[in-house]
Amino acid sequence: MPALDAVLAKIDANRDAALARLFELLRIKSVSTDPAFKDECGKAAAWLCAEITSLGFEASVRPTAGHPMVVGHIKAKRRDVPHVLFYGHYDVQPADPLELWQTSPFEPRIDEVDGRKRVVARGSSDDKGQLLTFVEACRAFVEGGGVPCDITLMFEGEEECGSPSLPAFLAANKDELKADLCLVCDTNMWDAKTPMITAMLRGLALEEVVIRAASRDLHSGLFGGAAVNPIRVLSKIIADLHDDKGRIAIPGFYEGVSELPPEIAEQWRALPFDGAKFLGNVGLSAPAGEAGRSVLEMIWARPTCDVNGVTGGYQGAGSKTVLPAQASAKFSFRLVGQQNPEKILEAFREFARARLPADCKVEFIRHGASPALQLPSSSEALSRARRALAAEWGQECIIGGSGGSIPIVGDFKRDLGMDTMMIGFALEDDRIHSPNEKYELASFQKGARSWARVLDALAG
Amino acid sequence: MPALDAVLAKIDANRDAALARLFELLRIKSVSTDPAFKDECGKAAAWLCAEITSLGFEASVRPTAGHPMVVGHIKAKRRDVPHVLFYGHYDVQPADPLELWQTSPFEPRIDEVDGRKRVVARGSSDDKGQLLTFVEACRAFVEGGGVPCDITLMFEGEEECGSPSLPAFLAANKDELKADLCLVCDTNMWDAKTPMITAMLRGLALEEVVIRAASRDLHSGLFGGAAVNPIRVLSKIIADLHDDKGRIAIPGFYEGVSELPPEIAEQWRALPFDGAKFLGNVGLSAPAGEAGRSVLEMIWARPTCDVNGVTGGYQGAGSKTVLPAQASAKFSFRLVGQQNPEKILEAFREFARARLPADCKVEFIRHGASPALQLPSSSEALSRARRALAAEWGQECIIGGSGGSIPIVGDFKRDLGMDTMMIGFALEDDRIHSPNEKYELASFQKGARSWARVLDALAG
Repeated sequence: MPALDAVLAKIDANRDAALARLFELLRIKSVSTDPAFKDECGKAAAWLCAEITSLGFEASVRPTAGHPMVVGHIKAKRRDVPHVLFYGHYDVQPADPLELWQTSPFEPRIDEVDGRKRVVARGSSDDKGQLLTFVEACRAFVEGGGVPCDITLMFEGEEECGSPSLPAFLAANKDELKADLCLVCDTNMWDAKTPMITAMLRGLALEEVVIRAASRDLHSGLFGGAAVNPIRVLSKIIADLHDDKGRIAIPGFYEGVSELPPEIAEQWRALPFDGAKFLGNVGLSAPAGEAGRSVLEMIWARPTCDVNGVTGGYQGAGSKTVLPAQASAKFSFRLVGQQNPEKILEAFREFARARLPADCKVEFIRHGASPALQLPSSSEALSRARRALAAEWGQECIIGGSGGSIPIVGDFKRDLGMDTMMIGFALEDDRIHSPNEKYELASFQKGARSWARVLDALAG
Repeated sequence: MPALDAVLAKIDANRDAALARLFELLRIKSVSTDPAFKDECGKAAAWLCAEITSLGFEASVRPTAGHPMVVGHIKAKRRDVPHVLFYGHYDVQPADPLELWQTSPFEPRIDEVDGRKRVVARGSSDDKGQLLTFVEACRAFVEGGGVPCDITLMFEGEEECGSPSLPAFLAANKDELKADLCLVCDTNMWDAKTPMITAMLRGLALEEVVIRAASRDLHSGLFGGAAVNPIRVLSKIIADLHDDKGRIAIPGFYEGVSELPPEIAEQWRALPFDGAKFLGNVGLSAPAGEAGRSVLEMIWARPTCDVNGVTGGYQGAGSKTVLPAQASAKFSFRLVGQQNPEKILEAFREFARARLPADCKVEFIRHGASPALQLPSSSEALSRARRALAAEWGQECIIGGSGGSIPIVGDFKRDLGMDTMMIGFALEDDRIHSPNEKYELASFQKGARSWARVLDALAG
């Protein structure tokens, strides 16, 4: 096992080549939710497999019912080291609306803002840039003589659409994938200078609702006043979902939601988090969630119900005097604590059905569901990782939460009995899922160094 | 002036050629609301101008700020005849959703259902087929020796998008367009056997609402719970627009709405109108309008507020965990009696503004407005037309209302002081504004004969 200093020096020496590799991966349009990009997802998987094979991993592209997985294994020379499973995802969100990108989303470029360089492209932060920090750390170890832990790499291609194929893949490959600890790089730092290990992840349940009424679109002059309008029906359901205190009105929704443990609540209160600035960065000023909660609670520790898209009737320029035959909306629920995703979705469906007038039919389309996850109180691995990150960044490491879900973490816990340590180098302003997504060069380069330190520390 | 029988015989002899002319016009994709079809609108105008010029009309294509008008004049040989202005529109609604058309919307075809032949194409009924019934009647008179009245033809190209250029055109050409009576062929028969003159037209006000919140689309995990969602804001506005009795909740909305005169109410109650069948034809069963009103009242004599389209956030396949930066909806109001369109729109804007939470901005986009119109109690022209129609169809002619608006009729009244007689041969099941629009061959052929009889009767 090479000395840590030599490994860090190799990472520094490899910077330009590492960036070129990141650019190659970013050029692949691996949008998983849209069937039009299926081949691009396969291309990204093949690229990653070739890359880690060249590092000495025993790797393969593994088909699923959806986009393929990439799995690779490499062993340390010492036999008394831990075995870690590193997870990342090569798929990305759709790039739309395209017209808001300053340059093409799949043609990465280096931009410089306030003296800080960043890579701009869809997936630069979420999750291609992040997952390559780990691969680059592995590279430096391999070039220096060998990795310090037994490592399994697993790259998924359906994280952005709810990981439909993952549970079956885990079940079928339990023995191969089980490790001592899972590492995930899909989260943020506390800020550009302060590392963070994310210990609380909100869950996610996704459901599309289609309301149908008349057998065809109707002329609003001939039928208006007499025919039911599915947009109105859908709007009523959406409007009823929250009460005037911002609480979600679905019966039973808050079952399993607990208040924060006092010590965590205290730590969060002490954090220099400016809710007004957080919202101000995106043109907002007033927290829109539950009355009486802090912004940090709203996004880390409270459940949500949101509409991600709505559509019905005429969408073109000008006007069209039509009563549409159908309207639909895509909903997402962020879940916390012990909320049961299946119960939540069933309660939501009941809530919608109860608001259907005569002549309306409703269809529910499931897009995935996963529970919230909390890392158990500090383990030896967590302490070691905290120290390693503090050494790299020169700052205490925060133990925080995340509003976004990473369903795999729940799957690892449920199906393989593994805990997951989430360490990421993304920043709050990375514009993930939005136009002009970026990843700081500092995140990419110090991220790789961070993983080298964490792996070294875990090996002991 | 040729004998009526000879004119009717000519119309019968011209049937195949008339149908070929209709097909030519239907092939022109004159969708007025979408700028992509601008040239096609010009093409339809030129086609009509050439057609009526060939009949001896002194005709021209007249530019406007939008799509052009076609105006033509022809005089009777006798000098003591009335001067009529006939209005029709050559523009059509968008053909979307295209996938629901059995054949291409702009490639007309003849279909036969239950032994009745019909032309299937966008615009076959609304309004290309209808306006050509009048042109074909003129043709038969011209071929027979001359028209019985002085006739001005005026064809508009923006009826389907609220006639934005029309008021200015009328104002600028008042003297040229003023006649004794206006005739419009854009309405229905009572049923396939019973002619109808439409005496009450609902008005129409169109308004688009755009709600904007954050400066960009947001990740629903990172911001969900804290950031305001414009789809929710818009849905609340839409949901609040009606109370639980189906009445519109905008303050002042019902100002100027009167109950039907008792004799009209009585006539309508006696009509063999089956509300359940009317709704059943389009897959519905329960009238969705104001509690306690008949279906006929709902669609002919009561005002409405409808959403014609709604859009916001992710529209593609699958899911996207986004909080959209904006959401928008297109609204239409059907107006009756003395409702003032400008007051209604201002009250609606106030209603929406009152429901805007912090950080939300609203933009209103106007798409046109016109008041309701009622034909004054029976004139000599009306009596003559009723008798002429009864003679052609062998049935008493109904005096009815129409839920759809024809803004031009209001403009003629307001700007030129002219009354309008609305006689049309469309049927309720013509699917106007919907996929697979059709026009019965009987409507087209007997429609031309009807106009010949009406013109002959008006000349006295």
